Order: sequence, then C-alpha cells, then structure tokens
Amino acid sequence: MSGVAGLLRDLADVGRASSGGYARFAWTTADLTLREWFVAEAAARGLDVTVDRAGNQWAWWGDPDADGPGVVTGSHLDSVPGGGAFDGPLGVASAFAAVDLLRARGVRPARPLGVVNFSDEEGARFGLACLGSRAVTGTAGADRLLGLRDDDGDTLADVLARAGLDPAGYGRDAEALARVGTFVELHVEQGRYLADLTGDDEAPVAVASAIWPHGRWRVDLHGEANHAGTTPLAHRHDPMLDLAGLIQEVRAAAGSADALATVAKVSVEPNGVNAIPSRVRAWIDSRAPREDAVHRVLADLSGYGPVEESWSPATVFDPALAARLADVVGRPAGGAAAPVIGTGAGHDAGILAAAGVPTAMLFVRNPTGASHTPTEHAEETDCEAGVVALADVLTDLLGEAA
Amino acid sequence: MSGVAGLLRDLADVGRASSGGYARFAWTTADLTLREWFVAEAAARGLDVTVDRAGNQWAWWGDPDADGPGVVTGSHLDSVPGGGAFDGPLGVASAFAAVDLLRARGVRPARPLGVVNFSDEEGARFGLACLGSRAVTGTAGADRLLGLRDDDGDTLADVLARAGLDPAGYGRDAEALARVGTFVELHVEQGRYLADLTGDDEAPVAVASAIWPHGRWRVDLHGEANHAGTTPLAHRHDPMLDLAGLIQEVRAAAGSADALATVAKVSVEPNGVNAIPSRVRAWIDSRAPREDAVHRVLADLSGYGPVEESWSPATVFDPALAARLADVVGRPAGGAAAPVIGTGAGHDAGILAAAGVPTAMLFVRNPTGASHTPTEHAEETDCEAGVVALADVLTDLLGEAA
Repeated sequence: MSGVAGLLRDLADVGRASSGGYARFAWTTADLTLREWFVAEAAARGLDVTVDRAGNQWAWWGDPDADGPGVVTGSHLDSVPGGGAFDGPLGVASAFAAVDLLRARGVRPARPLGVVNFSDEEGARFGLACLGSRAVTGTAGADRLLGLRDDDGDTLADVLARAGLDPAGYGRDAEALARVGTFVELHVEQGRYLADLTGDDEAPVAVASAIWPHGRWRVDLHGEANHAGTTPLAHRHDPMLDLAGLIQEVRAAAGSADALATVAKVSVEPNGVNAIPSRVRAWIDSRAPREDAVHRVLADLSGYGPVEESWSPATVFDPALAARLADVVGRPAGGAAAPVIGTGAGHDAGILAAAGVPTAMLFVRNPTGASHTPTEHAEETDCEAGVVALADVLTDLLGEAA
Repeated sequence: MSGVAGLLRDLADVGRASSGGYARFAWTTADLTLREWFVAEAAARGLDVTVDRAGNQWAWWGDPDADGPGVVTGSHLDSVPGGGAFDGPLGVASAFAAVDLLRARGVRPARPLGVVNFSDEEGARFGLACLGSRAVTGTAGADRLLGLRDDDGDTLADVLARAGLDPAGYGRDAEALARVGTFVELHVEQGRYLADLTGDDEAPVAVASAIWPHGRWRVDLHGEANHAGTTPLAHRHDPMLDLAGLIQEVRAAAGSADALATVAKVSVEPNGVNAIPSRVRAWIDSRAPREDAVHRVLADLSGYGPVEESWSPATVFDPALAARLADVVGRPAGGAAAPVIGTGAGHDAGILAAAGVPTAMLFVRNPTGASHTPTEHAEETDCEAGVVALADVLTDLLGEAA
C-alpha cells in the first residue's frame, strides 16, 4: 500500500500507446489488467469485491446490504485514445488512498464505504460515453447497449461473453444501485479554473456545482461536384469555403456568448484531391454554464441550418451537498469554502445524479488545464490534497460508529 | 449502327449508380460490359480487335503492321465515382461514328485507322490516373502498377488475372505503340470556354493546345489535442481554425494568380465531435496555363509549409498538328480556325504525347462546363459536329488511297 502517486505509478505502463498516451479501452487486455489491479488493491485492504450486472466493479468496506445504503467513491480506469494518466484513474486511486487515510486516522465509519470502478466511461470502444453507469441505472436499455459494435464489428454482447460475463444478465441492477446512498467522484480538473486562482483564493481542490448543458449539432454544406482542374473559380459552388466560414463563425459565436463551441469532426464527400466536394458535413459541439448561452451560439449559426443530434440539459448536483462538501474541503488560506465550479465534461456522477442518487464531485487542480491528452496533469502534492479532501468528505458523510 | 447519340444511349444503363451518376471502375462488371460493347461495335464494322499488354483495346480498319503506322482515335470508357455519361465514352463513340461517316463519304484511307479504348483512365480503382496509357508506354513500370491495390485490398495483378489477362505479360507494349503514327482524342470540354463563345466566335469544337502544368501539395496543420467541452477558447490551439484560413487563402491566391487551386481533401485527427484535433491534414490541387502562376499560388501559401506530393509540367501538344487540325475543323461562321485551348485535366493523350507520339485533342462544347459529375453534358447537335470534325481531321491525317 502506498500513497495515491504510488498507486498511479503502478498503472503507468498499462495500455500505454507508442505515442505516449494511453489506449485503455473497455474490456481490452489493458482494461482487464486494470480490473485485476482493482481486485488486488481491494483485497490488500480487505474490501469485498462484487461486479454488478453492468460490469462495474465495487469494493466494500462493511456490508451495504446489512448496514446500507453506503457512501461510494471512485471513478473509472478506461481512457480515450491518446488519453492521459489522471482522467479516471486518479479518482479510483484516491478512493483507495482515502480508505487508507481513514484507517490511519482510526475512523470507524457508521455506514459502509464503497469504492467503484465504472466500466467504459469514455465510450471510446462503443461510441457511447458512461456506458457502465448508464447500464446499471437503466438510463440506457440493455438491448440497445448489447447491440453496440466496436470498430472490429464485435458487439458489446460478444465482448462481454469473451471477458467471462453473461450478456443475458447484463443491464440495470437495482440491487447494486440501492447500496449507493451517496456518490462522490473525485476527478482531475479538465480546465484551469483552479490553476488560475492565486493568493488567498488559491485552492488545490474544488467541488462541482453542475455539468453544463451541452449538445451536438450537424451541419450539411451542399456544393456542386466538379473537376478541380477545369472549373473556373467563378463557376464553383465549393462547400469547403462554407466550411471555412462555419469554423470561424462557430468560434466567434462561442466567444460572444461566453460559451464553448467547436468544430472538431468533418466529413467531405467524395474527399478527392481534385474533386470539388458535393457535400461537406461538419459537427458542432457546444456547451456553456447556462442553457441560454448555448442557444445563443446556435442562433448565431442559424444560417447554416444546424440539426440537433443530441442535447443534454444541465445536471445540477445536489446544491446542499455541494455546499456542505465545499465547507468540509475549504482552502489552504483557511476560512473560505472550496470553490464550487461547473464543468463542461460528462461524468458517471452526472448519470447517477440524474438517476436520483445524491451525488457530488471533487476536482483536483490541473496545471495544464488539458484533458484527453497525455499533457493533462496533477502535481503529487495536489493529488495528496485531493485524498485528504476526499477522506474528510467521506468522514463527514459516513459518520462515526457509536 | 447509329449516330453518336445512339451509341451513347446504348451505354446509358451500364454501371449507373443509384445517385444517378456512373460507377464504371476498371475491370468491374460494368467495365467488362463496356469492353464487350467495344468488341461488338468493332465487329459490326469489320474492325480487327486486339488487346495490348496493358489491357487497352484496339480496333483496326486496315492492317497497321503491314501498312502502318496508322492514325488512332478514341478515349476511355471508365468513369470517376458519380461520373457523367460523356467523359470518355463520347470519344470512343465518336470514333466509331467517324468510321461510319468516313465510309458513308466513300473515303478510302491511305493508312490504317485505329479506334482505342484506354483502360482505367480515371484511376478511380487503383488511385493512379491514365493507368492503361502509362502502362503501354512504359511511363509507369509494370511491377509498380501490378502491386497497386484497390479499396478491397486486391492488387491489379489479382484483378487482371480474374478478368482473364495474364499479369506476367502486363506492361509496356512497344509493338502496340509502334502502330500509332498519330493519336487524336476527342473529349467533352471540362469547362465553359466554348459555351461562352457567341456570334462569329461561336464554335462547337475546339482543338487542344496543352495540358496545364499541375501538382498537388500536402499541408500539415498541428494543434494541441484537448477536450472540446472543457478547454477555454483562449487556451486552445485548434488546427481547424488554421484549416479555415488555409481554405480561404488558397482561393484568394488562385484568384490573384489567375490559376485554379482547390482544397478538396482533408483528414482530421482524431475527428471526434468533442476532441479538439491534434492535427488537420489538407491537400491543395493547383493548376494554371503557365507554370509561374502555379508557383505564385504556392508562394502565397508558403506560411503553411506545403509539401509537394506530385508535379506534372505542361504537356504541350504538337503545335503544327494543332494548327493544322484547327484549320480543318474551323468554325460555323466560316473563315476562322477552331479555337485552340488549354485544359487543366489530364488525359491519355497527354501520356502519349509525353511518350513521343504526335498527338492532338478535340473538345466538344459542354453547356454546363461541369465535369466528373452527372451534370456534364453535350448537346446532340454538338456531338454530331464533333463527329464531323473528327472525320474531317482523320481524313486529313490518313490521306486518300491512290
């Protein structure tokens, strides 16, 4: 057993791609290695491991069926392609480290404490994020999920069976969910809010207020197919020029609405060097702390006829719980509560909150602010501050046994 | 036997895709049907069909080995994806119709006349244009060509063997080439030069002066991968914005240099809706009547570090031959010679000219100016004018038998 940095170091070589980033996709060899690590760390602490019907791993200190519901903390171990070392694993490693710290402090919890590893949070393999938490809560139906295919054409059902799980039993697990009285997910911050705080405002850990409302929209830019080697400029209807305008207008609209908006995926038809495209398709991702800001971005782009492909309203975490945690966590300068901030990224915590579980999140300072890249980071002292904050929060939520 | 419009109508249903355009790729069922049509039309006219070592079909009126070299006309029957009905087939159909017209006129050629169908001119299957003419002239080596793979992973060698040709014998065919004293390719114009001529200038047929110098360049735009849902706008290095600038600057540079330049192919890494790209790759196609204009375009774009992927200098067709043909073809208003114009598109005629064969091209008026799309067109009267012009040119080149 070691501190959180040591726990992360044990994982440093698992699923590392030649690019330096991680490729830890659900149910791959790398992911199975991470799941074995989870079982071993749980066993080393005398925690009882169960796997729910959605393939999520739970390690319990105490018996949630007899003495529950309990307090659960954890995150996920899978990664995006080329992901970093912290997004996910920091939350699981901090959970184990917090158990160690509670015990070192002699805390005797009045309620059971669970550590969770949600399966396939990033959705890198089957194209749907938070797959494990959607499945266990029933937010997404088992039939739909089992039929999802990875890039090799294998269904989730095939993949689960190969990993030794029973697809027939896959899906919503009310029993597993009933054990969760409160869920707290610790995560590396995916931005620089904390990194930019200085002086008395400085804080290594924040509490989440909400997951921003977010959505994606598709834009079809129609052109006239023609020969790039013979068609005079004046006679062209080249949708690539519209794409250029769209990219710039999306950025401008985001800036003026104080939102985030991005064109990161395009599809060009036929995408030949000498073929003026007949169509360019582009996708807009837009998010903001407030729903009206997202709508303002889309209103600015209405000339492009964006078609909504998905929309997620804001997930507001229990405000009383967030305020209580912010007080418990505090700031190094003392006195003030920890910052309470929103995030544009989705999380399993958001799925559980939407399913009615009292839920909170802690964010650990990220000096680069980067996310989904090997440059995401958290300093070792901040990781330790995160464990202390998490242990304090858990102590508060669990209560002391009489 | 029927006029050129009737010949084209016989092909109207071959390889037509559901989109309305044609999918006539080399050695596919559609292409083999077109090759059978070629053999049948030759047989109906008593022409002797041979297939050279590069898979090109030749139909001879007279014996080029005894009385050659001859005069050859023709084009190709394959298409780009979503291609039109005229690019290629008009040249082959006009060749057969010209044979009919010569005979109707009682012309007895002093030299053999050949009709050719060059294989895989568009390069849609193996990614290399003018494959049949490159192979027969030895412009591209057989080993390289036989190893080219289509999208299914089949090599040209596999595909030829399946079509009943012997890959071992594939390649340069000096004997077939020696039969070609002069080559004249008739082609639908891929632009509106002729369509824009009016009054006394009006002309349904032009003669080619040259194929413009042209090339393609690759641009790598590097960014910083990050989460589109969490990264503040000010902290982004999003190469998609550079792409937008590149697209606009390419168009502006082309305009100011009086050249054509196009961004029609892009590749985004990782191309995920919520992943700020780590890299965007784009290709520039640029052509102009003069080489210095192409260089001016690229100089304007030097800030993007374009890397040359291919470069073809101008192919200038034999100027004396072009002038002679322009006089023979003339214009409807009488007196003046036919227009002599350059083209930005590559052709088998260019490959033969570069290989030392005296070569010329005729262009038939295209009212839409479109190319590589089902909207390319030639009016029936213009197709007939093309056949008359071709017959006149062939009569002039062949000479009358004593």
